Amino acid sequence: MSATLHTPADLADHTARFVVGVDFGTLSGRAVVVRVSDGAELAASTHQYRHAVMDVALASTGRALPPEWALQVPSDYVDVLKNAVPEAIAAARVDPALVIGIGTDFTACTMVPTLADGTPLNELPEFADRPHAYVKLWKHHAAQPQADRINVLAAARGESWLPRYGGLISSEWEFAKGLQLLEEDPELYGRMDHWVEAADWVVWQLTGRYIRNACTAGYKGILQDGEYPSRDFLAALNPAFASFAVDKVAHEIGQLGASAGALTAEAAAWTGLPEGIAVAVGNVDAHVTAPAARATRPGQMVAIMGTSTCHVMNSDVLTEVPGMCGVVDGGIVSGLYGYEAGQSGVGDIFAWYVQNQVPASYFVDAASHGRSIHEHLTELCQDQPVGGHGLVALDWNGGNRSVLVDAELSGLLLGQTLATRPEEIYRALLEATAFGTRAIVEAFNASGVPVTEFIVAGGLLRNPFLMQIYSNVLRMPISIIASSQGPALGSAIHAAVAAGAYDSVRAAGEAMGRLDEGVYMPDSESANTYDVLFSEYSTLHDYFGRGAGTGGNDVMHRLKSMRRQASREKAVA
Amino acid sequence: MSATLHTPADLADHTARFVVGVDFGTLSGRAVVVRVSDGAELAASTHQYRHAVMDVALASTGRALPPEWALQVPSDYVDVLKNAVPEAIAAARVDPALVIGIGTDFTACTMVPTLADGTPLNELPEFADRPHAYVKLWKHHAAQPQADRINVLAAARGESWLPRYGGLISSEWEFAKGLQLLEEDPELYGRMDHWVEAADWVVWQLTGRYIRNACTAGYKGILQDGEYPSRDFLAALNPAFASFAVDKVAHEIGQLGASAGALTAEAAAWTGLPEGIAVAVGNVDAHVTAPAARATRPGQMVAIMGTSTCHVMNSDVLTEVPGMCGVVDGGIVSGLYGYEAGQSGVGDIFAWYVQNQVPASYFVDAASHGRSIHEHLTELCQDQPVGGHGLVALDWNGGNRSVLVDAELSGLLLGQTLATRPEEIYRALLEATAFGTRAIVEAFNASGVPVTEFIVAGGLLRNPFLMQIYSNVLRMPISIIASSQGPALGSAIHAAVAAGAYDSVRAAGEAMGRLDEGVYMPDSESANTYDVLFSEYSTLHDYFGRGAGTGGNDVMHRLKSMRRQASREKAVA
Repeated sequence: MSATLHTPADLADHTARFVVGVDFGTLSGRAVVVRVSDGAELAASTHQYRHAVMDVALASTGRALPPEWALQVPSDYVDVLKNAVPEAIAAARVDPALVIGIGTDFTACTMVPTLADGTPLNELPEFADRPHAYVKLWKHHAAQPQADRINVLAAARGESWLPRYGGLISSEWEFAKGLQLLEEDPELYGRMDHWVEAADWVVWQLTGRYIRNACTAGYKGILQDGEYPSRDFLAALNPAFASFAVDKVAHEIGQLGASAGALTAEAAAWTGLPEGIAVAVGNVDAHVTAPAARATRPGQMVAIMGTSTCHVMNSDVLTEVPGMCGVVDGGIVSGLYGYEAGQSGVGDIFAWYVQNQVPASYFVDAASHGRSIHEHLTELCQDQPVGGHGLVALDWNGGNRSVLVDAELSGLLLGQTLATRPEEIYRALLEATAFGTRAIVEAFNASGVPVTEFIVAGGLLRNPFLMQIYSNVLRMPISIIASSQGPALGSAIHAAVAAGAYDSVRAAGEAMGRLDEGVYMPDSESANTYDVLFSEYSTLHDYFGRGAGTGGNDVMHRLKSMRRQASREKAVA
Repeated sequence: MSATLHTPADLADHTARFVVGVDFGTLSGRAVVVRVSDGAELAASTHQYRHAVMDVALASTGRALPPEWALQVPSDYVDVLKNAVPEAIAAARVDPALVIGIGTDFTACTMVPTLADGTPLNELPEFADRPHAYVKLWKHHAAQPQADRINVLAAARGESWLPRYGGLISSEWEFAKGLQLLEEDPELYGRMDHWVEAADWVVWQLTGRYIRNACTAGYKGILQDGEYPSRDFLAALNPAFASFAVDKVAHEIGQLGASAGALTAEAAAWTGLPEGIAVAVGNVDAHVTAPAARATRPGQMVAIMGTSTCHVMNSDVLTEVPGMCGVVDGGIVSGLYGYEAGQSGVGDIFAWYVQNQVPASYFVDAASHGRSIHEHLTELCQDQPVGGHGLVALDWNGGNRSVLVDAELSGLLLGQTLATRPEEIYRALLEATAFGTRAIVEAFNASGVPVTEFIVAGGLLRNPFLMQIYSNVLRMPISIIASSQGPALGSAIHAAVAAGAYDSVRAAGEAMGRLDEGVYMPDSESANTYDVLFSEYSTLHDYFGRGAGTGGNDVMHRLKSMRRQASREKAVA
């Protein structure tokens, strides 16, 4: 997919220089060519991963995977460099010689097990049938038992890093996934030299050097105040895990916006870009988007809304916000504390719903109106008064990342009658994700890190009704990023800084980022009714999410455990 | 629809006599021709109601109806007599002169407002656009506010009849529906001479006499020990309601199996049957089925499973079972106490699900396998181990009749992930209805009225997987009625008694009823896992169903209230 966003006439200025930003998402990678002076996006190109997400079976051998697994193949990422980058340059009609840098961002925490030279273990023929040899994608949720043990032990020992992560480490992160690998495939663990963030693995492919970016090292790798969890702590989890941080994880750290090195001849050949240009230190899709939306000041929360939502915000205050994903000094821009929170299923839930729960007649009607199914369902439900469907849902089909940090939670729909229509349930799911966002915003506000501005990036900003719901539920104006390639633009901004065109990410963001402010304003009557529904959501949220210890009900945990047990018994039978 | 079940050769015996049973259901009426000597069913014919159920608008004028309304048109019932009865006789190739009686059964509580001569008020031209002039079908649930007031007042005054109904009167019954009529359309209430069960109105059309059957008078009309609720009680509800029982409800009572009178010349012309033959006192579809399944002994519970499920059981003990629908002396057969319980949505929920929540590909695959969509979903989900879907649902999309007696409750689905498939949710709904049945059986067992045998009648017995789930969940063998026309056969049995061919309903049932015993046996391993799931169901059942007063959550009530409010505001806007 290519789109020329500017005409060649824009390029008459022969002093213009360009950067390339590459955003590695869950299913594809996207390259965008950006003008350094003003952030103008000249062209973009997307390349789908050939193996997509392996969550049922290994593509190479057909070996079945247990529930909650999600793997990828690293060579798919290199294919993005080989295809999307040259296509974007060609579509932009830019002389590659004018490109001064390349920056990348990635999903996180997405982990590649490698040899010392960066070779992914799945590329060794003897490991092709070993699930643990593959990339564990961010949404691989099978390390929850390990995460639980990490959390219980860290709380019992009063580990100082635990509060920096809202009191809970996620099953998605480096240590939980690493411990699962050790315990389920110790031989492969022994062969692994590095446990590498995909964000850094891609930069390694471009530069020939392994530099660990400060963002994922802090948010996903539990690097706080220069230290990883101690050998004592890790040994208490499992004696064989004692040296995990030192042996498999620790490596030279690179700051965001710095250069990780120069483009190698091999990578220059893949991409068609000049050998030796600056390659920015790796970064995360969400965090890199903040400067692209000019949102680098304290209190500006950026919600990157796609299959999942990631919330990032800077603050000049270091504090502990219950249930956020983490706070990292300089985690978004240097000089400020970068906070991250998230919702593990948002667009994913809407997609699941339309694929699994919407009857044929709706698709027929949508087609006859020339609408997508999402547009059609939105059209059908948007005129109903707030509360008119009588439904409330919990947005936990993909677990809960914030503020409960619990991948074992699951979805809930309540209030169905025999008259309930598909579009009403669709709307209840849209609303549930807005309530989930409000729970996060309220946790920040209550912790002395107030959210003063709400900015949306990501594909879901294309649904105006969804945006209006968020504005009404949050009782805040919604600003939206004015680029359709937010993360890729953010990566390009980092490339410009790495190449020396700007002094700081913040300065580059002011020049190259783009934002439309206050596009959606809250409607007070709807907001009043949403307050009532949010109160119902909150009661269910706490009852099902906070556990039996607080008078709640751990049924979701028990059902997931039964489901795993049944799956094992069936596999044996 | 006609089906000849026996060949004419069976009819060589010229001493054979026949009866006709007519079952009036929610959407159609069905007539069956039965041999008096042994219950052989010769032929059946079904006639659909032209106006079906009016739950969105009045058919006559298009006037919109509020949520929770469900109306019918009485002339549709007469059309069944005019069409289905002669068609069944013709298909059976029986000489009408050999027919000695006709019996009928009806949905309940289904109420017709009439003039003194039985003319339904909707047949007066000036009332054609008045919703309250029409039949209020059993599933008309808009009288819940009136039911709530009846229950609060009766409990406060310690009314002696209240415990006979499990402590709660339903919004479906005569007094709640009558009070709604008075308060929302007092002029029409003033014109109404009789508030008549449809079961009795149809017999009135056949005989020209209004006889009130003991079954509905007891279960739905609060007639206990010969008394209705007192004038004082009714006046305290609403002064204008003081004489409701005396003026609108009370009438001569007929016992089950007795003759209500002789077939009139007019009705003989409609049906093609001989003038003057016996017409049995009216009855209810569920209750009339017990003798058709030879289930007239204490402890034999008959579950009539269709769009909803009704449970009827005889006992020699009079006690109070919390949340049942009622206990009536001779309510099923004379000499025993007849207990009734129910689930307001069963097949209705499955139908709602396949119509609203199943994607096109499933219908395509079902068709390519030559299966119904229900058969196809069952085929896809039936091999999964118990608990393998990780889901639990509450079967309250149509409210809860027993043991909570609360039409304001609504559905719940819990445990969805992004991998949950439509057939898994379908199975969770099947299971939810089995759990609802177990809650009822346990309430009887705990109250000293043990359920010793579980017998299924009704359309859903055609799903063997569903039957096996019930057996596993209940840990009981399941016997099934061996007639596909259970209620109509039961009505025919009552006709035979009314005509004097047998001394009692029980004796006629032994001769004419038919049962296959122990068709499904519980599997102990599945039953053990279902015990765990039932425990989860029970916790949710009590939390959402028993109210904030017992530590629960009244969210379903509040959501229905918001839905009504939104509907009113939209109507005004």
